[in-house]
Amino acid sequence: MLPFARITVVGLGLIGSSIARAVREYMPTARVTGHDADPDVRARVVALGFCHDVADSVGTAVTDADLVILCVPVGVIGEVAREFAADLPADAIVSDVGSSKAGVAAALAEALPGATVVPAHPVAGTENSGPEAGFASLFHDRWCIVTPSEQSTPIAVTRVSSFWEKLGAKVEIMEPKHHDLVLAITSHLPHLIAYTIVGTASDLEDVTRSEVIKYSAGGFRDFTRIAASDPTMWRDVFLANKDAVLEMLQRFSEDLTALQRAIRWGDGDALFELFTKTRAIRRSIIEQGQDDARPDFGRAH
Amino acid sequence: MLPFARITVVGLGLIGSSIARAVREYMPTARVTGHDADPDVRARVVALGFCHDVADSVGTAVTDADLVILCVPVGVIGEVAREFAADLPADAIVSDVGSSKAGVAAALAEALPGATVVPAHPVAGTENSGPEAGFASLFHDRWCIVTPSEQSTPIAVTRVSSFWEKLGAKVEIMEPKHHDLVLAITSHLPHLIAYTIVGTASDLEDVTRSEVIKYSAGGFRDFTRIAASDPTMWRDVFLANKDAVLEMLQRFSEDLTALQRAIRWGDGDALFELFTKTRAIRRSIIEQGQDDARPDFGRAH
Repeated sequence: MLPFARITVVGLGLIGSSIARAVREYMPTARVTGHDADPDVRARVVALGFCHDVADSVGTAVTDADLVILCVPVGVIGEVAREFAADLPADAIVSDVGSSKAGVAAALAEALPGATVVPAHPVAGTENSGPEAGFASLFHDRWCIVTPSEQSTPIAVTRVSSFWEKLGAKVEIMEPKHHDLVLAITSHLPHLIAYTIVGTASDLEDVTRSEVIKYSAGGFRDFTRIAASDPTMWRDVFLANKDAVLEMLQRFSEDLTALQRAIRWGDGDALFELFTKTRAIRRSIIEQGQDDARPDFGRAH
Repeated sequence: MLPFARITVVGLGLIGSSIARAVREYMPTARVTGHDADPDVRARVVALGFCHDVADSVGTAVTDADLVILCVPVGVIGEVAREFAADLPADAIVSDVGSSKAGVAAALAEALPGATVVPAHPVAGTENSGPEAGFASLFHDRWCIVTPSEQSTPIAVTRVSSFWEKLGAKVEIMEPKHHDLVLAITSHLPHLIAYTIVGTASDLEDVTRSEVIKYSAGGFRDFTRIAASDPTMWRDVFLANKDAVLEMLQRFSEDLTALQRAIRWGDGDALFELFTKTRAIRRSIIEQGQDDARPDFGRAH
């Protein structure tokens, strides 16, 4: 049995378009309606053909849905929900894919009082954006974290979890606040640091931008991939998960200062000790299937 | 015509073993002698079979060479060179692959007065170490930076450059001090930051190590690859290129503090502006063939 029969995806970028494609592939009898605020994106999605229907207004898009998934930047989730609140069927479940969860739960509680809401976050993505960038297997063997709020019923949580499992994901239930702390270190801080170092590199006077690009294979290019992620989405994440990001950033800065001191004073043992410890985490990530085991992520050589 | 006929590789880890394999593949008539200080590595290299000969002492290894390439951590280059100084043929050229160049030139000048030396640095590698990790195509389309010192003759620079081109690399000539500044931002600082954040993540109390591993696909796992690099090699790089690394680290810390302030005060425009700017560098890196254009580096999905 399918957990949902009529699924509406609001926001047809990388994640939204991947969900739509995955539903078509893994739940072929379900009906997929799409909507995006940008008319140009809607036109491209019609041409790409992965939705049964593309609605011009978000109200029309949700009117017949049993699941509505919001795949928009977290900063506009409340606003978008208010826009379709009057058209939402009473038995529909509303979910989302946002990278910060406590704020999303609050925004949806305010915009959709009385509705059934199950916030969720599939930990998956690439550096590309837009409906052309999505693909059906994006969520395979990735974790989807479901963070029930006061608007979640047990049966709704089960149905949303089952939906993600159909798309190939593994589901974990978590407190929204704890989710935000975990993601601050595993995702938000890495993005912040990547954006920063790419910015630092492009502002140098003694090293030209062309040199930075030419010799990027020494490590820098890895950071540029992350720093190519969608700017609107990430601006919203940092503003929405401010406290947890600032807490992790403070710890990171302290640790960096300690390393800076070790370099300045030539304390090779301190460097060696850290550099040895960090190898173990990589091994565990590979063992648990959370990264490609091939050297250099399997890049072509 | 081959630039060299009898090549000795000292240090048979990822880079040394890749050079030996590449010589066998692209300069099949040249003879390759290998040496490693570790008897266990020597035994494995004999079994792997990519050297014509594996010598038990570094003096024996260089005695008949026309090119000696030192592929050892930069901290021991001087010491290793002193060990074979008495056995080095007068017409041999000595080169290396170290990631910092001013210090290497000084160490070799002291250890091998009167010898012909051409320091070089192929900007290529993976996170793996040891003779099993090497492969012949590692240097394809990567840059090799040659940094002539007072011990380099024009003809020796030409021969070493031609050697790297035979291995598939593109060669650039650069001042050692400028090389060290360029690599500080494109390679050394990225490694330092990756080591730091992986260390920060493993020291948290509120987020478990198992959660960090499970949800690493949100960005963190990219950093763990770099932070799995060889600890001895990297300890030596940071100590050898101290001034340039500290300079870049200072700039990075200032930029990170500015972003921290933008997050604290909710300055979304400042975040958006930086996040937009950093996309352009990624595009240039892809256009210039310095990274895999496939999403997520071509990781399997």
